[in-house]
This record gives sequence, structure tokens and C-alpha cells, in this order.
Amino acid sequence: MTQLSEAKKGRITPEMRKVAQQEGIPEEILGERIARGEVVLPKNLVHDLFFPKAIGKGVKTKVNTNIGTSPDLADIGLELEKLKIAEEAGTDTVMDLSTGGNLDKTRRSILKNSHIPVGIVPIYQAAVESIADEGSLVEMKEDKIFEVIERQAKDGVDFITVHCGLNQVALERLRIQGRMIDIVSRGGAFLATWMIANGKENPLYEDYDRLLEIAKRYDLTLSLGDGLRPGCLADSTDRAQFQELIILGELAKRAFDEDVQVMIEGPGHIPFSEIEANILLEKKLCHNAPFYVLGPVVTDIAPGYDHITSAIGGAYAASVGADFLCYVTPGEHLRLPTVEDVKQGVIATRIAAHVGDISKGLRGAADWDKQMAEMRKRRNWKRQIELSIDPKFAKKMREESEPKISDVCTMCGKYCAIKLVEKALRAKEPISLS
Amino acid sequence: MTQLSEAKKGRITPEMRKVAQQEGIPEEILGERIARGEVVLPKNLVHDLFFPKAIGKGVKTKVNTNIGTSPDLADIGLELEKLKIAEEAGTDTVMDLSTGGNLDKTRRSILKNSHIPVGIVPIYQAAVESIADEGSLVEMKEDKIFEVIERQAKDGVDFITVHCGLNQVALERLRIQGRMIDIVSRGGAFLATWMIANGKENPLYEDYDRLLEIAKRYDLTLSLGDGLRPGCLADSTDRAQFQELIILGELAKRAFDEDVQVMIEGPGHIPFSEIEANILLEKKLCHNAPFYVLGPVVTDIAPGYDHITSAIGGAYAASVGADFLCYVTPGEHLRLPTVEDVKQGVIATRIAAHVGDISKGLRGAADWDKQMAEMRKRRNWKRQIELSIDPKFAKKMREESEPKISDVCTMCGKYCAIKLVEKALRAKEPISLS
Repeated sequence: MTQLSEAKKGRITPEMRKVAQQEGIPEEILGERIARGEVVLPKNLVHDLFFPKAIGKGVKTKVNTNIGTSPDLADIGLELEKLKIAEEAGTDTVMDLSTGGNLDKTRRSILKNSHIPVGIVPIYQAAVESIADEGSLVEMKEDKIFEVIERQAKDGVDFITVHCGLNQVALERLRIQGRMIDIVSRGGAFLATWMIANGKENPLYEDYDRLLEIAKRYDLTLSLGDGLRPGCLADSTDRAQFQELIILGELAKRAFDEDVQVMIEGPGHIPFSEIEANILLEKKLCHNAPFYVLGPVVTDIAPGYDHITSAIGGAYAASVGADFLCYVTPGEHLRLPTVEDVKQGVIATRIAAHVGDISKGLRGAADWDKQMAEMRKRRNWKRQIELSIDPKFAKKMREESEPKISDVCTMCGKYCAIKLVEKALRAKEPISLS
Repeated sequence: MTQLSEAKKGRITPEMRKVAQQEGIPEEILGERIARGEVVLPKNLVHDLFFPKAIGKGVKTKVNTNIGTSPDLADIGLELEKLKIAEEAGTDTVMDLSTGGNLDKTRRSILKNSHIPVGIVPIYQAAVESIADEGSLVEMKEDKIFEVIERQAKDGVDFITVHCGLNQVALERLRIQGRMIDIVSRGGAFLATWMIANGKENPLYEDYDRLLEIAKRYDLTLSLGDGLRPGCLADSTDRAQFQELIILGELAKRAFDEDVQVMIEGPGHIPFSEIEANILLEKKLCHNAPFYVLGPVVTDIAPGYDHITSAIGGAYAASVGADFLCYVTPGEHLRLPTVEDVKQGVIATRIAAHVGDISKGLRGAADWDKQMAEMRKRRNWKRQIELSIDPKFAKKMREESEPKISDVCTMCGKYCAIKLVEKALRAKEPISLS
């Protein structure tokens, strides 16, 4: 059984019940949306998952945090620290994108320590092990990919990114068109390299049924990756990208028909003005499967500040229907994130998700703002800080700049506009500020 | 003469020439837009201004930085440091919002050290001096306001925020409607307090002709302030806000007719989904006068991160036609900004402005991104860093995490997608990564 097969039968699973409660929506509504494929609930059958989460229509916009080692920096302890800070900062899911050190051990440590759904990109491990064992990526066996997926599924991974749509048809579009930067997806790059060198079809496309069989057995949610996502504004919304999306739409339908939960991944570097069209197209071409976007990164010129470029893109994307935002850290395009980078990335992305939830009119979203406004009006600083998205940091900022009068802040001091007007509207006698 | 009177006569001033060159647009086009009131070029006749700037249609979206003392923190040296870092970070203008210490001295120091247009909010000084000299804000003389404006204009201030539209009609709308937080504009609060206590009309509205006369004499650009801008999402886009905007539209027309350059200030705290309507309305009600927005701040819940909430709002606002973005610092709602807060605010707002310029299709805007993409493709790190919005910081981030192979970064190390695919597309023989 999968959450989808149950939902199609009109059954409410314990996970659906838990999620419906979290979200404050009726179980039946959630179940119907899962049954239509508009919502996924990624939870591996063998994973003892503390906080299941739902992603899609009518539920809160979710935030994913990428962690994981690289060949240059492979320290499991550091990655567990990132997991911890990401959970504290409020991420909804985490993905282990490790490519350095002992990958099985890293993944198992993350799974053991995580309270939230864990995702992974199996082609990384398949490629890394092939290079180690066969001496070269292009020697990778097709079986290797599926063996790794099975191994990861067995460990309890809840969702996997699989670039099944990067087939020869899509690659041909890329070739005919040409691009500033051909491929920036690491998984896409591994597969394209293998496909070109071997002159073969993408195994994840060719043997998609085999993938579906494994996914169904574990209720592994498929996140159909965009191997051809644009890596710079100049390559955005092009024929290669949309060729892949068309294929992903076909594959999403096949997964849905086999009771396998599925979502779609999206850009990437695109201009702000193209975000709405990208969301619309994904929904139309992929029959409303949840959309998981990476950013979008709305300008290429701000390495060091890409949590901001992505918060801009993510807020807009979520506002017009994106369901799941992959965080981007300040140091994206410069380095593997540090623990502090992770925190900054999660907070910025949560802001974007919340802005989106207000736009979506999600029940309760604007209430948070209303509570903050009420406390701001009352100049109740304790509650303002508690209500902040990052209370510790807000507290620190305020404490570093202590006002002379305790109910205002050092921006305006005794000339606090809120306080002034409150007095004026109440006063019967002249107001003195001195 | 004013830039506007000259433009109406079809004359190109030296400042227009300089600005047209900066912007890479024909002088005549710039002149025509100034003549129509769609662009302002704030430069006081007595100010020896090094970098004049144009704000409005068809020119780059500009960024303003607020600096200045408060009663709790009055240190001229610190404010000059903020000026310096703001200029280095690429702000286009600066506003001196001082309310603490010696205001004349602070303003003159800022004017002396600034290379860019300087703005101010005269009602602050009028209020602060009235409280000091008369013992109370409500004892402020009408003349005082105009005397301060003249004094500041004489010093060379290029533009002033004047809350002329907060008249009794607008205040009545506020009263009838009620609000979560009535007034968050400091200037608005001073004026409303005075108006309520004295039962009189706003002198800046009542004696608007007197203001126009001074403005014309110095070619002081008026920035018509929104004293009733919403201070939380719950108060956004309400009758009070739009009543004031209607009055501002009338006043903008009167300024334009008198050859006084004028722009309009806008929100403030509004949900993302209301931004486009706000921009449209300003343009329609104020016959396309440039729109200067504060943020917009698209959620109330992120004190400590309000440069991000405002970059989200600002990017959208600029994308749909806002011309001038007032920065917001991380610590807005918590404290007077530190030097580092100022820098973070400027960079975040410049990102938003650039995103807007790409959306606007401004000539050259996307070229910056294209150059960065080209260098990213070539893995030319030196040029990538030089092209970054904050090269020093990008360099620092990269240096803190040195890759084992010099032409990649520690995110992917030897599995760099760009490098991998470049090899694959070129290779005739199998690719080895080891």
C-alpha cells in the first residue's frame, strides 16, 4: 500500500490524520487531494517518521534543506550539525546530497537523527561508486542505479530525485538549441555524460517501470528532477527545459496510475517575470502534481546573497502556486554551505514560503502577522520577539541597542510614531514629549 | 529655473546630459520624460552634486539609504560611516533622518561628505526644535515648518519628504475606518498629533503654495510622503491609505504645474498580492509621477530579516513599475541601524532593484547576468567575483572554503556539473573522473 493507493480508496491513513491536524484542514479534503495527485505525503513504509509532512495544494508551502558532504568536505559530524540547525530553524524536509566520504554511513546517520522526511538523489551514489569501482562514470552499469535506489529505500529514505525526463529526446533539444551553460544539475550532468559516452537511453527513463515497482514497494515518493533546469537567466524557459517538462508530465501520469506518489522539480535561474508562466505550465503539463522549485534564483549577479535572490523568486513562485521551496544558501555558487549558511538559507526560504501562504490565502497564515501587529501596537517586545521567525536573533539585535525608554526602540526613541499617535488620539490635553 | 522648467522648454541641462550618459539613454528621451513629470532629477540649485541621479520611467530603479541619529543614539561620526558604507555598497541616494543631537551640524556633515543626492524630512527638525524651544510638539508654529524647510534647502538638500496629503479629510477617513496600528510614519505622527491637538489643518497642505515657492526657488524635489502608509499587513490598501493617495495626486499635479519636481511615496506593509494594484493606482492617481516605495514589507513576522522581506516586496514593486526603493535594514522594527545593518540593507535593496530592472527590460540590465553566466561557464572565479554585487564578500566566502581543484568550488568539487558536461559534450573517448 501507498498513501496514494489508500487515498484513492477513500481511506484515511494515520499519517494523513496527523498531517491534517498539523495543517488545520479536514482529513477528507486532504485525502481527496492526495487521491487526485495534487498533494504528496512522502513517508517511506519502513521509516519511523516523527513528523510526516504534506506537500501540495491547500497545505502550507514547504521548505527543503539540502545538506551533505562533497569530495572536498566530507565530515558526517558537520552534516549532522546542519541537520540540527535546519530543523531548529524550521525546515520541513531535508535532502542528503552527499558525494564525499562514506555515503551509506552518512545517509544512515542523517536518517537516524532526522525527525522530518528525508530525500536523496540516488544517481549521486551510483555515479560515485561506479567511479570508485569501475574506474569511470561511463562504465556505470544500469543495474547499479536501481540497486542503489533499493538500498537507499531500504534504509527508509522518503523521497528521491530522479532525472527520468532527461532522455535522448530532451538531450536532442538541448543539442539543437545550444545554451550558455548546458547543464547545471549534478544528477543531470552524471546522466548526460553517461548517455552521451555510451550512446544509450537514460536508464531511469528506459526502465521507468522498474523504478515505479521499487517506489511502490516502499511508498517512495518520486521527485522528478529537472536535469535541464536553466543555470543562468540567459538559458531560462527554453525549449530544452520545456521538452524535459513535457516528458516529466508523461512520467508523472504513469507514476500516478501505478499509485506512486510524485512531484515535479523546477527551476532554477529564471527572471522574475517568467515565474508565473513556469508555475502555470508545470501545473498544466503535469496534471497538478506538486511543484518543487529550486529558488527560483532571479538574478545571477549576487553570489554571497543567493538566499535573498531565491527568497524573492520563492515568494513569487509560492504566491502563484509553487508547493515546495528548496532553500538556497548565501554561499550557493561559491561553496558547500557552512552551518550558518544553512540557517540563513532556511530562514530566508521560510519567509518566502510564508509570504506565499499569505498570497494563497491559506487559513491561519495572515493570523501570524496579525498577532505580531497587535504586539507591535502594544509595544509588547517580549511577545514580538517570541512571535519572530527567529526569536533568538531578534532578541540579540534588540539587546545590542538598548533604548532609553523601555517600550520603544532606538530607531525613534521618544519619537515613536505608534506611541505618539496613541497619545494624540486619546489625549484631551496638550501632549508633551520632553 | 528647475530641471522641470528647462525640460518643458525642451532644454537639456548639464545634469540631464550627465544622467543620460550614466543611464545609456538619449538625452532627448530623458528630457521628454522629465518634462512629462515621469522622471525627476533631484538636485538642489545650490548643491555642488557630484553624481546627479534620475528617478522614474525608463531609467534604472534607484535605491535610497536612510541614515541619521535618534534621541537614543546621536553620533555624527557613526552616521558618516554609514554614509560611506552605503555609497560603497552602491546606494543611489541617502536621506538624513536625524532626530537626535545637533541636527544642523549632522545634516551639513552629511551634505559635505555625500557624493549623491541627499534627502531629508523637514518636519522632524521642526518638531524636535519646537519640543526643545516651546516645550511641546503641539506648540509648534506653522512658520517653523517653512523656516526649517528654507534652512535645509539653503544647505543644499536635494529632496524632501513632506506629508502634505495627510489633511483633515484623510485623517477623517482614518477615524471612521479604524486601524490595527493607526500611524507608523514618524512625520505623519508628528503632524497628526499637532493637527488633532490644535484642531487645525496640516500646514503643509494649507500652505502648499508657500512650500511650492521655496521648492521652486531651490529646485527642491518634493517627495510627497504617505503619512498613512499601512504599518502592518492587516491595515494594507485601506480607505485611509487611498484617501491620502488621492490628495497626493492632486498635489503632485499642482507641483508639476508650478515646475516643481515631484514624486510620491508608498507603502509600507502590504501583502505580496496587493503590490501590483498599489503600483497601478499610484501611477493612475498621480499621473505617472515616480513612485518611491518603502519596502514594501510583505510580512510582519520577520524582525531581524526585514531586508529580505523588503527585497521580496521591492523586487516585485520594481518589476511592475516602482521607480525608487527605500532600503530597509535587517534591524528595522528593532533598532537604529548599525553600519553593518546599513550595508546589508543596501545590498538587498540593490538586488531587488536589479531584479526589477530585468523585468522592466531595461537596456543593459540582463547583460550583467549574462556576463556572470559566461564567467561561471568558464569557471573564471576572478571575474565572477569582480562581477558580484559585493565582490569583497564573495571573495571572502570562497576563500573560507578552498576547493582541492582550483577551477571548481567545494559544493561539488570534482563532480562539478558544468565541467562534467563540458567534457562529455567535447569528448570522443570515455571520461574518467578519478
